[in-house]
Amino acid sequence: MIKVGICGTTGYAGYELLRWLTRHPEAHITFTTSESQAGKTLAEVFPGPLDTPLLALDDAPFHEVDVVFLCLPHGVTAQVAQRALDAGTRVIDFSADFRLTSAAAYHRWYDQDHPTPELLPVPYGLPELNRAALTDARLIANPGCYPTSVLLGIAPVLRVGGLADPTMIVDAKSGVSGAGRVPKQNTHFVEVNENLAPYNIGHVHRHVGEMEQEAARLATGSAPQIIFSPHLLPINRGILSTIYVRVPGDWTEEYVRSLYVEAYTKEPFVRVLPAGQLATIAHVAHTNQCALSLTLAQPGTLIVVSCTDNLVKGAAGQAIQNMNVMFGLAETTGLF
Amino acid sequence: MIKVGICGTTGYAGYELLRWLTRHPEAHITFTTSESQAGKTLAEVFPGPLDTPLLALDDAPFHEVDVVFLCLPHGVTAQVAQRALDAGTRVIDFSADFRLTSAAAYHRWYDQDHPTPELLPVPYGLPELNRAALTDARLIANPGCYPTSVLLGIAPVLRVGGLADPTMIVDAKSGVSGAGRVPKQNTHFVEVNENLAPYNIGHVHRHVGEMEQEAARLATGSAPQIIFSPHLLPINRGILSTIYVRVPGDWTEEYVRSLYVEAYTKEPFVRVLPAGQLATIAHVAHTNQCALSLTLAQPGTLIVVSCTDNLVKGAAGQAIQNMNVMFGLAETTGLF
Amino acid sequence: MIKVGICGTTGYAGYELLRWLTRHPEAHITFTTSESQAGKTLAEVFPGPLDTPLLALDDAPFHEVDVVFLCLPHGVTAQVAQRALDAGTRVIDFSADFRLTSAAAYHRWYDQDHPTPELLPVPYGLPELNRAALTDARLIANPGCYPTSVLLGIAPVLRVGGLADPTMIVDAKSGVSGAGRVPKQNTHFVEVNENLAPYNIGHVHRHVGEMEQEAARLATGSAPQIIFSPHLLPINRGILSTIYVRVPGDWTEEYVRSLYVEAYTKEPFVRVLPAGQLATIAHVAHTNQCALSLTLAQPGTLIVVSCTDNLVKGAAGQAIQNMNVMFGLAETTGLF
Amino acid sequence: MIKVGICGTTGYAGYELLRWLTRHPEAHITFTTSESQAGKTLAEVFPGPLDTPLLALDDAPFHEVDVVFLCLPHGVTAQVAQRALDAGTRVIDFSADFRLTSAAAYHRWYDQDHPTPELLPVPYGLPELNRAALTDARLIANPGCYPTSVLLGIAPVLRVGGLADPTMIVDAKSGVSGAGRVPKQNTHFVEVNENLAPYNIGHVHRHVGEMEQEAARLATGSAPQIIFSPHLLPINRGILSTIYVRVPGDWTEEYVRSLYVEAYTKEPFVRVLPAGQLATIAHVAHTNQCALSLTLAQPGTLIVVSCTDNLVKGAAGQAIQNMNVMFGLAETTGLF
Repeated sequence: MIKVGICGTTGYAGYELLRWLTRHPEAHITFTTSESQAGKTLAEVFPGPLDTPLLALDDAPFHEVDVVFLCLPHGVTAQVAQRALDAGTRVIDFSADFRLTSAAAYHRWYDQDHPTPELLPVPYGLPELNRAALTDARLIANPGCYPTSVLLGIAPVLRVGGLADPTMIVDAKSGVSGAGRVPKQNTHFVEVNENLAPYNIGHVHRHVGEMEQEAARLATGSAPQIIFSPHLLPINRGILSTIYVRVPGDWTEEYVRSLYVEAYTKEPFVRVLPAGQLATIAHVAHTNQCALSLTLAQPGTLIVVSCTDNLVKGAAGQAIQNMNVMFGLAETTGLF
Repeated sequence: MIKVGICGTTGYAGYELLRWLTRHPEAHITFTTSESQAGKTLAEVFPGPLDTPLLALDDAPFHEVDVVFLCLPHGVTAQVAQRALDAGTRVIDFSADFRLTSAAAYHRWYDQDHPTPELLPVPYGLPELNRAALTDARLIANPGCYPTSVLLGIAPVLRVGGLADPTMIVDAKSGVSGAGRVPKQNTHFVEVNENLAPYNIGHVHRHVGEMEQEAARLATGSAPQIIFSPHLLPINRGILSTIYVRVPGDWTEEYVRSLYVEAYTKEPFVRVLPAGQLATIAHVAHTNQCALSLTLAQPGTLIVVSCTDNLVKGAAGQAIQNMNVMFGLAETTGLF
Repeated sequence: MIKVGICGTTGYAGYELLRWLTRHPEAHITFTTSESQAGKTLAEVFPGPLDTPLLALDDAPFHEVDVVFLCLPHGVTAQVAQRALDAGTRVIDFSADFRLTSAAAYHRWYDQDHPTPELLPVPYGLPELNRAALTDARLIANPGCYPTSVLLGIAPVLRVGGLADPTMIVDAKSGVSGAGRVPKQNTHFVEVNENLAPYNIGHVHRHVGEMEQEAARLATGSAPQIIFSPHLLPINRGILSTIYVRVPGDWTEEYVRSLYVEAYTKEPFVRVLPAGQLATIAHVAHTNQCALSLTLAQPGTLIVVSCTDNLVKGAAGQAIQNMNVMFGLAETTGLF
Repeated sequence: MIKVGICGTTGYAGYELLRWLTRHPEAHITFTTSESQAGKTLAEVFPGPLDTPLLALDDAPFHEVDVVFLCLPHGVTAQVAQRALDAGTRVIDFSADFRLTSAAAYHRWYDQDHPTPELLPVPYGLPELNRAALTDARLIANPGCYPTSVLLGIAPVLRVGGLADPTMIVDAKSGVSGAGRVPKQNTHFVEVNENLAPYNIGHVHRHVGEMEQEAARLATGSAPQIIFSPHLLPINRGILSTIYVRVPGDWTEEYVRSLYVEAYTKEPFVRVLPAGQLATIAHVAHTNQCALSLTLAQPGTLIVVSCTDNLVKGAAGQAIQNMNVMFGLAETTGLF
């Protein structure tokens, strides 16, 4: 059994992680922390059958566990990661602190100095695209929810140098759990329900840096630029990214599909839908799956629809997948 | 034209009031205030086409208007009402400050001294049940949203002394706009969506005092006691109250229906549904209507379902109906 | 490994069952059928990662499995159960065909002759209340979704003869998956969304017969009568039953709680919430749990709120729990 | 008073039209028809206070009204329009039958012969872009819901020849009322709720023909091509179109805004949001407004977000606006 700790259990991602780890046949949860709710038990915070004492972060016994999951805000998490590594524990970090490979990029997108630049770069925990770097890692940066859906959606095109125009358009839509559990005006029920609201559209959302960095690493040829328009959906969970890519004019839809099938045929968590089916959030909700559909709108214009559950493949499930890789387990252990 | 002012325009009830008054053929909106947003204009606060400067409450020119609507928190509103009355303006108050007829009852249910006991009692602004008292009123207490649906739902039984048992059970369900616009954990989108949550059930919700007071006034015979269980629905607006009443064992459903039809046949805003139809929130959403259905579950047990839109018949629409009564207009003017 | 078959896989209950059985460590799914979709594979019907060939019911190889789950309409299911039993297979039936213990009661509530009266009575598969009868059963009647929530909610009171009045009021609210997957006007998205609609209220819903039968069996003293008002909620899954019971006037909330805690303390799937917490659908969604809260509204009036997920504890999860009991597994195996 | 008739009152658009016309100060509703519900009254079909007898279409007394609104399926409507014109009535048609200017285009997009080619071309009823052609019209083609949002969103760019690339990308999202009132699997509540589903993406949706036709008419320079990806949102009403346009690299956001402000400054139903605000469906729900926001994502890439209520500005409200134009009323009469 792998002994695990969870820091930041009372956010949506931390709680989802706990739900999945509870059923994981090879994991034993040794401790859980919550800064805002320390001293309570989980059932006092979240309605549901799970109950576990919530420690203060300072009291987390890192030395007692094999791996710790950090579900903490960016800026805070880096030094906690350092503490855990110093205690000999492996770390899977949910925040943005280790996703960008340089302190300069971090400063550009997060507008602050990186707290522990000496730890950079850190392996990017998207197993389907970066598995080799994860096996021996002591610290993994769990990807952002939007980048997971976008990068899985375009990797097969990027790898063969298929971008006929370096600018891609990503029109993304996310459920509200992606915005966290702290109540705000724009996530108040009445404001979200019966509404759809774009936010941070263009080239300004913080996930753009992460997406462009990884897309560049995947791409043969010039670095992609991503126009990224997120929208807040009136649902709890799920991301649907509609991706518009210019490809060579002689590519057929069948050829595109063959690229994707080849790329993902052995991947248990990526499903390329057959011709005529479009990916929807219902394909992936409450699973660690990514569903992809491919539509050639006209010669030279490809539309990829990529769906994930932002709390599973976009956060907790992917983290467990990373843990499975790190500890040599079958990658699907405890996942679905 | 009636010159009107609105105090507290940026809550849901105040904003709904503004929406209806904008289309009212006999009303001219002279000023609007907002404590939290003073200095801004409405379109900066609420997405939508309505724009109007938001004054601070202290700057409200009460003397320039014929009537002012107060959409302010209880405890605060009473002294503002006094100021407006002193300026010669008539007042329709949305808060709970003037709904209870005695300072003692106010203290019991709101746990504070009444700010202006000398203004009590104030006519209770439910025109269908209390029209005569409203015509000449200078100050009207606009009823609570739950009490409106419950009192209209049981008045015909109460008036004929039909309670075979003084205890009624009201299982009520409300949309989230009834909980106000300030973000809280329990009105965060993710917590409400795909959920149903009871709250303050039993005999503790503050609207119980108001309901029992008015029910007692309507009743022939002993004073009714109301077991009241509100539930928070994952919708924006609407209240459905399922009311269980013990009636004489020889009453037929047809007889009950005849009581209701007689009571409401001339009321433009109360509709008694025909046998076989059950009232739903869709019957009344975005209207000033109350829809009632009547089901005799077994001899002696009547189920009344009463539906209103909490923001219209439960707040802003009823306030306009009261204004129409006060100023001698047709009661349906500007309403629907 | 237990070899299982599923008949009727493409309704919501059958699909939910497949999702849970896929992760059950002791179950192997041998076949799945669908009358409407025979010849297709599951992924053509349901968006999602699960794929399995869908046989016609006539082609179901009952003799190859240890147990078959029947998720078929009432009236149809009884003779299929007979076929499966004849093939030596054990049967867990989701329909109403075997829930009523007599053919006369079946005729009264379902308005047709019972297809296989010689199989009656059949053990009622609510393990917390009827475990002993299930261990050796060859055929189990999986309870209805509403009855599960109601019976668990009132059993502790019934068993001690605590009904001060034989009539109970159950105001129930259910998500739409309880109404099945066939599109109808009243389950069209636009009709349900932003609405709440009561239906079949009073003493007419078919689950009343089942509830009263089992309540009578549990009760010490006179047979309970249940006024039952179901409402259709704009959510996918979950049932919340608000139950109003008259109890002796000297019962305290603490005493009531002690009855419930004692009744359920060893039950892994029933949770009695501490004083001050009310049960919500979020407590149980996507789990096999039943959450109960207890409120003494006034002396002699108890309000029990009972929540379950209609597709899990109300259908598929309870069926697996029954399977676990039948085959001597730990009752929580593969459940949550 | 203008005497009006409504054919096809029991679809969502027809019912919405009735709701608005009921409150229109210059309209009198003379008759309403419904093919599926003829002989009933409206309140038997739609929950709500409106009640009116529903005639069969064959019994519609066209000669008694000044204008008739046809809310009928395409293919059916053309000959009804002919009948109404023959009776001397003016016609506003909601269907697609008269939106395309040639029978050939109609055949291409609707895969059938045009029933009354001799009536083509018909003025396209988008007043902000085509007002002059509507004043004297006897027959007006009310635009599709998607085209209204898209054409208002791009007209100012098209008119100045601002397309740096003729291909535009429109990522559109619509509420479910746009799919009509007939229950189908893909509009069943459980399938839509907590989901987002793209459909007919690429260059195949029937509204593409209409959009490209009108865009070509507006454009200076080469004819635009529109990649169009509609998605079904889990809300009742509202359309949000996120439009990606390549513009000259030296255009600033301020310059773009000045184009739009100039184009729409006198339009009561189009609102160009100030810099920093993004259009949302909440800006326009239950109004005849179109809200537009402008974001320059990077030099040369403009993102226009265009929001309308599909049942109002996208259908019934726009039809009334057209009626107001036809009959010389102020264009805002009875609208909001």
